[in-house]
Amino acid sequence: MLSTVGEVKNYVIIFAKGDEAVSGMTEFAQKYNVKSGHYQAIGDALHIELGWFDYKRKEFLVIDVDSSEVTSFTGDLVWYKNKPVAHTHMTTSLRDGSVKGGHLLQLIVGPTLEVFVTVEPTPLYKKLDEEFNAGLIDPDLKK
Amino acid sequence: MLSTVGEVKNYVIIFAKGDEAVSGMTEFAQKYNVKSGHYQAIGDALHIELGWFDYKRKEFLVIDVDSSEVTSFTGDLVWYKNKPVAHTHMTTSLRDGSVKGGHLLQLIVGPTLEVFVTVEPTPLYKKLDEEFNAGLIDPDLKK
Amino acid sequence: MLSTVGEVKNYVIIFAKGDEAVSGMTEFAQKYNVKSGHYQAIGDALHIELGWFDYKRKEFLVIDVDSSEVTSFTGDLVWYKNKPVAHTHMTTSLRDGSVKGGHLLQLIVGPTLEVFVTVEPTPLYKKLDEEFNAGLIDPDLKK
Repeated sequence: MLSTVGEVKNYVIIFAKGDEAVSGMTEFAQKYNVKSGHYQAIGDALHIELGWFDYKRKEFLVIDVDSSEVTSFTGDLVWYKNKPVAHTHMTTSLRDGSVKGGHLLQLIVGPTLEVFVTVEPTPLYKKLDEEFNAGLIDPDLKK
Repeated sequence: MLSTVGEVKNYVIIFAKGDEAVSGMTEFAQKYNVKSGHYQAIGDALHIELGWFDYKRKEFLVIDVDSSEVTSFTGDLVWYKNKPVAHTHMTTSLRDGSVKGGHLLQLIVGPTLEVFVTVEPTPLYKKLDEEFNAGLIDPDLKK
Repeated sequence: MLSTVGEVKNYVIIFAKGDEAVSGMTEFAQKYNVKSGHYQAIGDALHIELGWFDYKRKEFLVIDVDSSEVTSFTGDLVWYKNKPVAHTHMTTSLRDGSVKGGHLLQLIVGPTLEVFVTVEPTPLYKKLDEEFNAGLIDPDLKK
């Protein structure tokens, strides 16, 4: 932990080579009983699965990316169906400086991923949106 | 509102399908009397107009993007000509994982845009820079 | 400075045309005796040198980018070999909205770069990782 100010807590999470980031963020939320939070990160990845949501099929198309620099990594921790969910969108750069991006499905770290997390005292919950078949944050939900 | 620590306030703004984000951020700043702030967001867009500033013509070239995942969205709220201005730069990813980016001119949300805002007690103001014909933040300005 | 809440300090740094951002962030960390911190920024660049880390050669390939909109700029300030280091990954957009990204080696600002920094009371240090010939943050290190 980096600091506690009032009811807000700031953490840094350092992932190492071979760690998987989505499950790692979820485990962090469970271990520290996170009610809601948001984060940003930089680092590197050995392999990433990115998603682009196909509105017609209501599912993600998957884009695979190999060794790359994680150029942006923004997300939030909220609760959905009684479990914390780490929702991350990111970009990552290849050998020639070109950039791929999308909704993060899976990321294998290497050599490092440095995540700065702000944990809030206010719980946030998602509700199923049937039009999109996706869980969306509803600030009015109380559980 | 997520939390208040000292004079700093943290908010989450959840935009829904069809909302326009630039005007939405400006309305937020007016409604909550924001003196200065900064934010990050993730979500999805049905349509975006991005700008690239042409230094020779001193105006934005416009790039149109359709259905995409908002992969980064970073910005600040400051005052210029007696009004709050939401200045956002962003990237967004397409079906094949390729990424477009620029200065945000307009964004139609769909299905959601989750914006985490930190509101500061210190006012910030922009001043007209005549070389670029653009308002730039001047930390020494007091109004 | 924008605010102080408990032991956490929030700053905005406004770089002007011609400033170099990596050395500027390092000077900020030295001047304000920053133990650790993280930041996000938006703005514009006249010239950028981006890196992609070649694992086989253990060095950065360099990608040069000219006039562009800084679409994301995320980083942290930690200590390595008794000096503060500003570690930044970024993306930047070109005339046609296409995006380049990578590890930031050098950035010449123009007309502005607006950096929001959160400075933490907890020191963070890097350790040499011999496999990658790179300094990686080790949260257990005390100096």
